[in-house]
Amino acid sequence: MRTQLAAAATSDITIDGSDKAIVIAVAVVALIALAIAFALRAGVLAADKGTAKMQEISEAVQEGAAAYLARMFKTLSVFVVVVFGLLFLLPGEASERIGRSVFFLVGALFSASIGYLGMWLATRANVRVAAAANTTGREEAMKIAFRTGGTVGLATTGLGLLGAAVVVLGYGSSAPKILEGFGFGAAMLAMFMRVGGGIFTKAADVGADLVGKVEQGIPEDDPRNAATIADNVGDNVGDCAGMAADLFESYAVTLVASLILGSAAFGTKGLIFPLIVPAIGVLTAIIGVYITKARAGEPGLKAINRSFYISAVISAVLCGVASFVYLPTTFAGLGLSPEKLQELGVSDAANPALIAIVAVVIGIVLAAVILWLTGYFTDTNFKPTKDIGEASSTGPATVILAGISLGMESAVYTAMVIGAAVYGAFLLSGSLIVGLFAIALAGCGLLTTVGVIVAMDTFGPVSDNAQGVAEMSGEVSEEGALILTELDAVGNTTKAITKGIAIATAVLAATALFGSYSDAIRNALAEAGDVAGDATGFVVAVVSPNVLVGALLGAAVVFMFAGLAINAVSRAAGAVVFEVRRQFREIPGIMEGTTKPEYGKVVDIVTRDSLRELTTPGLLAVLAPITVGFGLGVGPLAGFLAGTIVTGTLMAVFLSNSGGAWDNAKKLVEDGNHGGKGSSAHEATIIGDTVGDPFKDTAGPAMNPLIKVMNLVSLLIAPAVVALSVGDSANTFLRILVALLAFAVIVVAVVISKKRASVLHNV
Amino acid sequence: MRTQLAAAATSDITIDGSDKAIVIAVAVVALIALAIAFALRAGVLAADKGTAKMQEISEAVQEGAAAYLARMFKTLSVFVVVVFGLLFLLPGEASERIGRSVFFLVGALFSASIGYLGMWLATRANVRVAAAANTTGREEAMKIAFRTGGTVGLATTGLGLLGAAVVVLGYGSSAPKILEGFGFGAAMLAMFMRVGGGIFTKAADVGADLVGKVEQGIPEDDPRNAATIADNVGDNVGDCAGMAADLFESYAVTLVASLILGSAAFGTKGLIFPLIVPAIGVLTAIIGVYITKARAGEPGLKAINRSFYISAVISAVLCGVASFVYLPTTFAGLGLSPEKLQELGVSDAANPALIAIVAVVIGIVLAAVILWLTGYFTDTNFKPTKDIGEASSTGPATVILAGISLGMESAVYTAMVIGAAVYGAFLLSGSLIVGLFAIALAGCGLLTTVGVIVAMDTFGPVSDNAQGVAEMSGEVSEEGALILTELDAVGNTTKAITKGIAIATAVLAATALFGSYSDAIRNALAEAGDVAGDATGFVVAVVSPNVLVGALLGAAVVFMFAGLAINAVSRAAGAVVFEVRRQFREIPGIMEGTTKPEYGKVVDIVTRDSLRELTTPGLLAVLAPITVGFGLGVGPLAGFLAGTIVTGTLMAVFLSNSGGAWDNAKKLVEDGNHGGKGSSAHEATIIGDTVGDPFKDTAGPAMNPLIKVMNLVSLLIAPAVVALSVGDSANTFLRILVALLAFAVIVVAVVISKKRASVLHNV
Repeated sequence: MRTQLAAAATSDITIDGSDKAIVIAVAVVALIALAIAFALRAGVLAADKGTAKMQEISEAVQEGAAAYLARMFKTLSVFVVVVFGLLFLLPGEASERIGRSVFFLVGALFSASIGYLGMWLATRANVRVAAAANTTGREEAMKIAFRTGGTVGLATTGLGLLGAAVVVLGYGSSAPKILEGFGFGAAMLAMFMRVGGGIFTKAADVGADLVGKVEQGIPEDDPRNAATIADNVGDNVGDCAGMAADLFESYAVTLVASLILGSAAFGTKGLIFPLIVPAIGVLTAIIGVYITKARAGEPGLKAINRSFYISAVISAVLCGVASFVYLPTTFAGLGLSPEKLQELGVSDAANPALIAIVAVVIGIVLAAVILWLTGYFTDTNFKPTKDIGEASSTGPATVILAGISLGMESAVYTAMVIGAAVYGAFLLSGSLIVGLFAIALAGCGLLTTVGVIVAMDTFGPVSDNAQGVAEMSGEVSEEGALILTELDAVGNTTKAITKGIAIATAVLAATALFGSYSDAIRNALAEAGDVAGDATGFVVAVVSPNVLVGALLGAAVVFMFAGLAINAVSRAAGAVVFEVRRQFREIPGIMEGTTKPEYGKVVDIVTRDSLRELTTPGLLAVLAPITVGFGLGVGPLAGFLAGTIVTGTLMAVFLSNSGGAWDNAKKLVEDGNHGGKGSSAHEATIIGDTVGDPFKDTAGPAMNPLIKVMNLVSLLIAPAVVALSVGDSANTFLRILVALLAFAVIVVAVVISKKRASVLHNV
Repeated sequence: MRTQLAAAATSDITIDGSDKAIVIAVAVVALIALAIAFALRAGVLAADKGTAKMQEISEAVQEGAAAYLARMFKTLSVFVVVVFGLLFLLPGEASERIGRSVFFLVGALFSASIGYLGMWLATRANVRVAAAANTTGREEAMKIAFRTGGTVGLATTGLGLLGAAVVVLGYGSSAPKILEGFGFGAAMLAMFMRVGGGIFTKAADVGADLVGKVEQGIPEDDPRNAATIADNVGDNVGDCAGMAADLFESYAVTLVASLILGSAAFGTKGLIFPLIVPAIGVLTAIIGVYITKARAGEPGLKAINRSFYISAVISAVLCGVASFVYLPTTFAGLGLSPEKLQELGVSDAANPALIAIVAVVIGIVLAAVILWLTGYFTDTNFKPTKDIGEASSTGPATVILAGISLGMESAVYTAMVIGAAVYGAFLLSGSLIVGLFAIALAGCGLLTTVGVIVAMDTFGPVSDNAQGVAEMSGEVSEEGALILTELDAVGNTTKAITKGIAIATAVLAATALFGSYSDAIRNALAEAGDVAGDATGFVVAVVSPNVLVGALLGAAVVFMFAGLAINAVSRAAGAVVFEVRRQFREIPGIMEGTTKPEYGKVVDIVTRDSLRELTTPGLLAVLAPITVGFGLGVGPLAGFLAGTIVTGTLMAVFLSNSGGAWDNAKKLVEDGNHGGKGSSAHEATIIGDTVGDPFKDTAGPAMNPLIKVMNLVSLLIAPAVVALSVGDSANTFLRILVALLAFAVIVVAVVISKKRASVLHNV
């Protein structure tokens, strides 16, 4: 007996005629997006590059960022090759195994390329934005920054869509299996880039601030600080490269989940429709990027939000049209076999077109609500951040407490909104399979906004860097500096919003994939001739103690990962402090501005440390599900995934929003509230901001790829776990051996990172 | 068809002959414990009361603490009466409903009494410990402090055991149902006392420090600070009353879980054995309390740990004897019906006596491991806390980051240890029901250590207060002050250990109760004639989206509760700052020491604020499961519970250990490391300690009763939810109405607490 998803995946699916034409059209749309991205890029590069001094600084940043990414890719390539090989060892048909491994490589490569592109362009856009702010003015500066983001946004969506369309064209009914590899490759690389970039950017930032602002009393981005170039490099490798890879991964994995579940729920049309929705998203993203113009006197955030809302409405309308044109209004019209229809268990009144469009709209609305909610909790104009600003009058401790409680509360509201979206989509039909597909489609709805979201996000680091270039060159007018400060503040909020959206995609994709997980197990059980799952103790009831222990371990991994990431930043920042202090001490003339500090040394140190530090959390993410799955079985592994999803979601939003709010509370004080710059309130908010740095830019945003990586690893290993759970004691021995090996590697990695100079030990 | 637990509960259970004699013997042991507690109390009170000035201060603390508890009980009595009434509305047989409601009252009353006793005696012991340190010396001071704890510890175990034994004697096979009420009453009151006391103690502490240490530069416990009496009152109502009630609740609920599951797994003997184990624990606790003596020159913690280990070993040995004497070595020997045996599904080789003793030993070992682990992460002699001390050289931000990452990591290790204990106990038999009982028995094993644990914990606030009395009176010699400082540091670590043990009981009890929960649902379904649970959509598979949404909401409640508790402390502390500042400003002569500040005003303010602030988190805990259960159904409610258990466990340990480590890192610096008192490193660790205050004494320890309250509420409402889930639309209407009402109350409570002066707004 094969179960529902599998039955659908192997029968009912034929892609020819008009369906084939649609997939080809989708691929063409993806290529158009890439072409427009290319054109936007050319536009950005054509802008004025500013003065020689500005160019010199920008080039130093470019070099540092490129060197870091090159070294990272070299390090990761070993890892990618190992996983590529391991994937072959997992059970499956030969052609599927080859396809999966190959597309694992493609996913990883695409993810890396998007990250590299984001970094490459951002390091070139920074100086141009600074130059524009200095000469042509605010509108032009904002346009360059936003179009830089547009390039990355369109490339992200274009590549993601292209990959999925090619797989569907080439593999037909096997596409879902192959796509697991594609999604895993994208997620794994994104996770490493998020973590590594996050450690880099915050180690440099925190280290620079601790010596510069706190000890020497010199302003941010002061060229006398040896860590400034590293700080600016960090913005690009963390906030640009890491974020772009992360959103590409979100895009790819959500698509993968939709295609897996779509074919199970709607047959062929279910495999095609999830391609149509993001294709529409690409079109509206193009519109969104081109219509973003700040009207005179209008806040920058308002202009960006307007583009978001306009493109969201257009997406919803077009998706509505697509649903009713492409999908039938009864399940009978889907052309499924009678047995399949019975298995789905939908009522006669169920309407596929209606279910699809409502699900997509739920996703779009979810994006809008998160946009608003994140803005409310982290923007300087609203009560929560103002409250933190007020807490600064009683010192750093109250600032920290206020930020933590704000972050925790805001996480709750975000979780409730995401939960409502999942529940709403699930309720649309009475059927589990169709419900899971609806959740995935809500994810596709969210995807339609990704183009604009990436553009918004990239806006942040580009503006931040432009301000850095301006400050360091000393050649930007006062008016130009003011413009750049405003753009930087807008960037802070857009960055927080992106993180909210990213974590929402994680929940939607993971929930949907969860359905595939239990199906993968049932199929493997059927193949092993153990339909009831007795021999494997296949219990996924949440009330069973072993499942609960799995969930506890899943939640624990989230805490461990966050703790490791935060600790890694502290450690790497300590090394920066040490080096910057050494330079001040040993190189005469730095403080007077007569000698240039050795910027490159700091970049080297941070590069080395962040690559070393990313190993432990990275291994933890990949190996923890292997340990739990092979060690405790598939039931506890299901609990493990549930534990990571729920705790990871709350932790991600908590960390991101606390951090964002502290950053903006500092800006509030710097704008002259509560005593302004240099007051004790200012000092208190600087401390809050420093605490928030690894929260919001390292640990928080890494939760999204972490959740996806663990989900996909579980999905991939599930059949192997089942195969080793039945049969003779040799199998059991092998199973336990794999678990112990994986666990041993985690333990060794953790011990090594503990052995390293403890927190700031060498300072 | 009735299911397994229910089948056991209504048949197979007869308590007569030797079993009855055993229960009576257990009750006698409980009475002996109470008698010894009374004797110890008399011994404490007989000690020297110190100088007139010391007595005056102590009396002010006594008055403040008594006034707070009196007002709290008045406030809570309304709540207790309402719940007492609501319990009647839930389905069940009349006699069971009456018994449950009555024993709900008894549980609440016992919980309150233990809390009151803890506070009453601690406020009288403080001055005696101070006097002893001043005159007779360290050994005598330590003896008084530890015997104060012994009184509370024996009273806790005595009352808990007495309540359970009486219910078993009086109700026989219905005992489990009645005990749900007993446990719920204990847990609910403990939660309120933990939260209210936690807010009181930290609001006073943080407020006192912010004005005293930070603004005016006067030392802790300086009599010129108007908040000092409130601070000392807080130690007693939070750390003594709240903690004692909390551990009583842990004791009661773990016993309840064991008795419910014991009767299902082992029949009559399963209802008796879980009474024997803690009775043995009472005996060994008496030994432990009497043998605790610090040898000359030996650290205080070592003496306490020695008592713990000695009594743990004695407990294990005696429980082993009890198992093999009382329990048979085959399941056939339990006298269960053949159908029942078949339902249990254990193998022929399964040995009840062996399963029982191994489970109990797992619990005892778990307590010892947590003791060690918590000590490692929070004691000043180990690397983690030293690392935080070192981070102080780079300022407050790195102190905060180091403490947070330490807390997160330590939570992971604690969770893994607890998870291993649950999993180990579960694996002892192949049967789900017996496995659940084994988990509950591991909880009973933990319980055998509670007497000593409470004694250890009470040691903390008594020493802390003794130091306060000494400092304020100014009449303690330098040598005496040194002794008190040492005892205070020992108290910090014992407090952290207690929190670790408490959260472990929460996981064990909750996991075991989880089994009862799913059984309660199946029984209700059977009664409603809907065995398959189709009409109610009873899905508890963790992979189902609605269950996952439930889990997300469960984790969200944990974050909300923590955020609210931390915020409440900030708010109430703000009011204290305001009042202390006013007194310094308006009352001349305070700073010179010629006029006494108005201590009572501050006590009044904190009393009022903490009672007001505890309402919202308290309502959230009781009403959230009602909202989820009635609103989304029993499947999502199961997910909800799983979400709270796993996230709550990690959050509890994270908050407690971060806070404990910060506190001790401060002590490290004060002992002369990294620049010592008055250095910038000291200031950095003071900030860390202030952040940690609400972590470790308000939000963290409240997680334990929170988890239990939500579990018991769910268990109690499950049948009602099922009854309203089947049948006509009037039922559905009523179900949704209940959910909406509960949700509306939560929303109103949250909005009201937001409307209140925002964080430190009025300062």
